[in-house]
Amino acid sequence: TKNLIVRNKLNAFYFLMIFTSSGAGYHSESKAKEYKHVCKRACQRAVDRLRAGGLALEAVTAALMELEDSPFTNAGTGSNLNLSGEIECDASIMDGKSLNYGAVGALSGIKNPVLVARRLLSETQKGKLSAGRIPPCFLVGKGAEQWAISHGIPACPTEKMTTKFSLSGYKRNKRKMELAEQVETKRKRQSCEENNSACLDTVGVVVVDREGNVAAAVSSGGLAMKHPGRVGQAAHYGCGCWAENARDVSLYSTAVSTSGSGEHLIRTMLARECSTAMQAENAHQALLEAMQNKFISSPFLAGEDCVLGGVIVLRCCTCGEAQRSEDIQALLVEFLWSHTTESMCVGYMSAQDSKARTHISRLPPGAVAGQSLAIEGGVCRLGTVSD
Amino acid sequence: TKNLIVRNKLNAFYFLMIFTSSGAGYHSESKAKEYKHVCKRACQRAVDRLRAGGLALEAVTAALMELEDSPFTNAGTGSNLNLSGEIECDASIMDGKSLNYGAVGALSGIKNPVLVARRLLSETQKGKLSAGRIPPCFLVGKGAEQWAISHGIPACPTEKMTTKFSLSGYKRNKRKMELAEQVETKRKRQSCEENNSACLDTVGVVVVDREGNVAAAVSSGGLAMKHPGRVGQAAHYGCGCWAENARDVSLYSTAVSTSGSGEHLIRTMLARECSTAMQAENAHQALLEAMQNKFISSPFLAGEDCVLGGVIVLRCCTCGEAQRSEDIQALLVEFLWSHTTESMCVGYMSAQDSKARTHISRLPPGAVAGQSLAIEGGVCRLGTVSD
Repeated sequence: TKNLIVRNKLNAFYFLMIFTSSGAGYHSESKAKEYKHVCKRACQRAVDRLRAGGLALEAVTAALMELEDSPFTNAGTGSNLNLSGEIECDASIMDGKSLNYGAVGALSGIKNPVLVARRLLSETQKGKLSAGRIPPCFLVGKGAEQWAISHGIPACPTEKMTTKFSLSGYKRNKRKMELAEQVETKRKRQSCEENNSACLDTVGVVVVDREGNVAAAVSSGGLAMKHPGRVGQAAHYGCGCWAENARDVSLYSTAVSTSGSGEHLIRTMLARECSTAMQAENAHQALLEAMQNKFISSPFLAGEDCVLGGVIVLRCCTCGEAQRSEDIQALLVEFLWSHTTESMCVGYMSAQDSKARTHISRLPPGAVAGQSLAIEGGVCRLGTVSD
Repeated sequence: TKNLIVRNKLNAFYFLMIFTSSGAGYHSESKAKEYKHVCKRACQRAVDRLRAGGLALEAVTAALMELEDSPFTNAGTGSNLNLSGEIECDASIMDGKSLNYGAVGALSGIKNPVLVARRLLSETQKGKLSAGRIPPCFLVGKGAEQWAISHGIPACPTEKMTTKFSLSGYKRNKRKMELAEQVETKRKRQSCEENNSACLDTVGVVVVDREGNVAAAVSSGGLAMKHPGRVGQAAHYGCGCWAENARDVSLYSTAVSTSGSGEHLIRTMLARECSTAMQAENAHQALLEAMQNKFISSPFLAGEDCVLGGVIVLRCCTCGEAQRSEDIQALLVEFLWSHTTESMCVGYMSAQDSKARTHISRLPPGAVAGQSLAIEGGVCRLGTVSD
């Protein structure tokens, strides 16, 4: 442990985790490579910020911007197109230290939706607007776009955010829908037989910084062929991301981001549920139970036989055996991911690592997506010399 | 008790409660009369539906439509105008039986926003759309308006929803803002010294029907002079309303609606917190503690010294001494309201009542709005002959 601590003398501790989540059979080998690349780049961005003295909130923003800018993710550039062929993005961010929150929904014409969420969060912290008006924490649609531009956030026409891939997906989906509407007579219950890949590939980030603050953020282009104005979990408080520093009643700092079928993640409030569960002693067991009881078998999703989602969870404490010396602070970080989708791509990096690690997690053979889950993770002890 | 039960033989049990909430010194005597009138009419609408065999979900919708149509409430017609002089409404509805939910945010051009939320909820229950798309539970802005119109919900131009009162309020606020912007140099922390009345007067309804199902709904025109696209608690899952029938782990059915400063109600997720608290034995004590610890002193609102909000809470069970005979079902209904605003107007009616009762609840003398609370309520036992 001593070596470890000395090695991180300058960096202090931090840990971050990033995901892109995907649907059935979608993380093919060629795709997987791209996802791993973008996860690594995003980790690097966050680490650069942290090394430059930035806090968790800045690091999650930097990482998410990199993910949004990738044409391979369903967030920012390359987002799914809606029913009208437009891009409408959702994003949110939460700061575990101040518990402040910012979100945008159905936002068009802005290159980095998370930047708007981040700015809403920081404007909230500045207090009231003129004539005693409370600043907004959640803006949608045209109003959100105007607000962003008036706050100096770069605009971007939809055409520039549309990729060859998203456009061909739109055309394919449109044909599929037209065909389906000729054939279908009755609406069906949620079923996994149909390809749900279109709703996924969203991105999320969780970070703990050198001061032990956590932050979480999430960004999504939403369901392919969604109705204009549809807002998913990525813009929903308690559903897309959650971050809470440890305080009196809660021993652990926790940060969570979610991905998957927006409506299911909303109705189960999955991010907050996972965060609450993480106060239990056994993190792995607690997440397993939360995913099983609060998601797959949630009473809020009774009758749904295909519940698709994924979460990344980070919890940390400066507790127990870690407090051995007054000169040395140690932080125990547990990081976990779980998903009911076929696969999920995760990247992570700690203050001890010289580069990010990436991993494609898959459901065990024979497991049914939307009904079974995979859960993995690790533990890492980080140290810093206190001043 | 026997008389009571016989009297309600045909009606079976139901109970409903309605509020309009208001800011500092705003429920003046003349206003109070109007509020009481509209609360009574809304109660009557709900009761008519229930007597005709309607369930809780239909009753809350009918009552809320009446409240939205009143020019005196900040919901539907007569809503506060935003910074651009437009009306943008938020509304949501939740069904305690199915736990389904529907919401609209920043919706213009629709006479009854709650009707759109109600329709989103019922479309969700019909299963997937063509080509396996999951139906949305939350729509905002222009997309929500288009969806509503395509589903046959009456449109209404903003001019028709604007009242003399809302327009003069807008002009007064605009002048106030312009003056303030000349003077103010630094933004202030949230303080109650300024008049916060503009953010309130929203409306909510909670109902339990003859089958013991609960439902809740809420509707709001939002903050006066809000930024276009701002969405408040009335369109936020877990924040504006909550309804959950009793099931295995929870003894009580609960329904909650909230009103007040939207951002504060969002960040504290007040509706859901109150619903969760209501599983404790002593309802009055539980609500008191929830309002104190999860709202006024919430860590999510640290640094805010003025936390304005109000809730109506209904909980019921067919438990304890009520189960005395197999032929007779009895339902114990506890109804409570609490607020940190100067006043709140509440209307309620049970299957035993021939007409609705209304009440203006006020903070005790000397209590400071945003820092103190009032809490009141009652208990009522309702009966029905089981078949």
